Amino acid sequence: MKVSPWNLKQGFDSLQALTYPSSVKSNKNATTKPSTATISAPAYAQAGVNLDSDEAFVEDIKKIAQTTSKRREVLSSIGGFAGMFKAPERYKEPIMVACTDGVGTKLKLAAELGVFDSIGIDCVAMVVNDLVVQGAEPLIFLDYLAMGEMDQEIAKATLSGLAEGCRQSDCALLGGETATMPGVYPKGEIEIVGFSVGVVERSQIIDGSEVHDGDAIIGIGSSGVHSNGYSLVRKIVDDAVARGELDIHAERDELGTTPGLALLAPTRIYVKAILNLIRDFTLHGIVHITGGGFVGNIPRILPDSVMARVDPTSWKRPPIFPLLQRLGGISEDEMLRVFNCGIGMALIVPPAQVEEIIDRLRGLDEVAFKIGEVHRKQSPDDPSLELVTPS
Amino acid sequence: MKVSPWNLKQGFDSLQALTYPSSVKSNKNATTKPSTATISAPAYAQAGVNLDSDEAFVEDIKKIAQTTSKRREVLSSIGGFAGMFKAPERYKEPIMVACTDGVGTKLKLAAELGVFDSIGIDCVAMVVNDLVVQGAEPLIFLDYLAMGEMDQEIAKATLSGLAEGCRQSDCALLGGETATMPGVYPKGEIEIVGFSVGVVERSQIIDGSEVHDGDAIIGIGSSGVHSNGYSLVRKIVDDAVARGELDIHAERDELGTTPGLALLAPTRIYVKAILNLIRDFTLHGIVHITGGGFVGNIPRILPDSVMARVDPTSWKRPPIFPLLQRLGGISEDEMLRVFNCGIGMALIVPPAQVEEIIDRLRGLDEVAFKIGEVHRKQSPDDPSLELVTPS
Repeated sequence: MKVSPWNLKQGFDSLQALTYPSSVKSNKNATTKPSTATISAPAYAQAGVNLDSDEAFVEDIKKIAQTTSKRREVLSSIGGFAGMFKAPERYKEPIMVACTDGVGTKLKLAAELGVFDSIGIDCVAMVVNDLVVQGAEPLIFLDYLAMGEMDQEIAKATLSGLAEGCRQSDCALLGGETATMPGVYPKGEIEIVGFSVGVVERSQIIDGSEVHDGDAIIGIGSSGVHSNGYSLVRKIVDDAVARGELDIHAERDELGTTPGLALLAPTRIYVKAILNLIRDFTLHGIVHITGGGFVGNIPRILPDSVMARVDPTSWKRPPIFPLLQRLGGISEDEMLRVFNCGIGMALIVPPAQVEEIIDRLRGLDEVAFKIGEVHRKQSPDDPSLELVTPS
Repeated sequence: MKVSPWNLKQGFDSLQALTYPSSVKSNKNATTKPSTATISAPAYAQAGVNLDSDEAFVEDIKKIAQTTSKRREVLSSIGGFAGMFKAPERYKEPIMVACTDGVGTKLKLAAELGVFDSIGIDCVAMVVNDLVVQGAEPLIFLDYLAMGEMDQEIAKATLSGLAEGCRQSDCALLGGETATMPGVYPKGEIEIVGFSVGVVERSQIIDGSEVHDGDAIIGIGSSGVHSNGYSLVRKIVDDAVARGELDIHAERDELGTTPGLALLAPTRIYVKAILNLIRDFTLHGIVHITGGGFVGNIPRILPDSVMARVDPTSWKRPPIFPLLQRLGGISEDEMLRVFNCGIGMALIVPPAQVEEIIDRLRGLDEVAFKIGEVHRKQSPDDPSLELVTPS
């Protein structure tokens, strides 16, 4: 597959690397209902839920989960009422960190293209990227999958992506819930929610309180739109398709692939890179550029006394962003308010360490740029973030 | 409100006790869109997601979350990228226990009746009841809410129920995700998923390995259908309504309320009662009667050498069950395969402690019965569970 330079070491490679069924077209005509003679709850099966096959599917899930991290801290396997784990013993004062997220309406695009493993990676990415910004190492992951009608091919592809995301972030797929909900989700679609718990040494929590005047801001490249802003993406795409200006299935030179696949590129997982940096450098603050873009996220960790000044022209945007901007007629302000625009993580670091950190990130197969600095506010009313192109 | 004796101390009371808007009828005609002049991402807002109001809503969520447990172990508040907590200091070898669940298609019934706080309680109940059966004390809870269009009234009612569930189980609502997903969920509906982490002393984990020949099985009463089997419930109800045999809005003497409200009764939360028992009694095994009913759950914790014999006539079923059975023509076997049939938890205990445990449960406002015993299997091929009515 031809890929853009941007994606060379990123999303698409890991998507291709999945050894389990990578692209599952949902077959809307297939029926695999066993005869009622073998069903332990026939009326429930007629209502759309087959307890026997759902329970048998747990064995398949176990096999997929076993491909994720064999952490010594995990004390139970899937199938119990709940999963058990503990903090690694090397922690003196372990603090647990927990968060949850989904992948938004990127789900609809996955269903449209019949490709479900990438949203599994997305789901893990959205959650563990929120953990690692506090300095935490992810330990375990739980998933919730819901479908209107149990489609084991779709569920397995999604779970395979979840397992790949867990491997990329070195956490164990501890358990989860697969719900059959007739009438809630259309055939061929799936909802996916993830939850992770990590651990951080109390003295090493990164919360932005150390950020100060003169710090530099480093951006780490994203693999594309990641998993935010897809309601806008879909509107832009649908309108452009309706106008005859876009075919999501046709390769485009500037993307090196089709718009559909470029938009489905899995969210980059920054866990290993950031944990590597934490061991050797001083990170004052880490920001996941998630829902709300630069404007919604950088201010979340800044002390009141300082502001961030980011130059939005200081990095090269992946080609999917100018394409969306042009097709949708989206203003520059809104692009930076909704999308990551090519930066998945922002690191706030002492200026003397900038070059070494960027070198290390490149050695870790990440793309990185210095994108701004931190300044003391002149007045308490100053904004927390300025997006300024130097004249 | 008139309630059935069964529900007197249970679901309905806690539903009524909510001081925040208890019943929210979704207003399908209301529009609260601000003028585009005040919107920071106008194209995204046109695509159905208003970042400004979504971010402002986080403040409302914080206020609701603050009504839940002020656990000393919680180190962060809502709004960060992830929530932080630690194991209570009294634990010598703390093991963390994590699980996730949703409330299935009970969601559709809630949307039909325009009542959303009860499913918030359900969501917490389904999760923390899975934790406590392993002997764990729930510490924190995270929620995922998703709607097609952000309806703050529905979200607040649901969150209020979640907060009530957290109070009933003494855990902190640590954080969560509220997703606006146009095109995935119809207006007036919501998806809800919960995650919880609890802690148990390693030496006190309850996993069924101590269950042995001669143990007694005690059932603790449910508040109704809880949150499993609703696809079957809805099929039975819809068919009966179509035949003119049922009006879900009309009070029925045998229920002491309407079928709609009886079916929406919040799932009983057993955390405080079971943690109380664990302090003073020997519990060899605890089984949450969740999806799959008696047949799907009791065998999950039994050692291979033993079987459970349960007498399904040894307790009085809440009136909603015979009503569903009669209307749907559901066999006795299937009733016990799908529904809890009036028993939300099963405890496996030494026979000498049965009376004292039942007395204690009654003192804790629970309804409890001896419902069976554990026997040694005569052959390895014997079933793990027999449902036997003594002749």
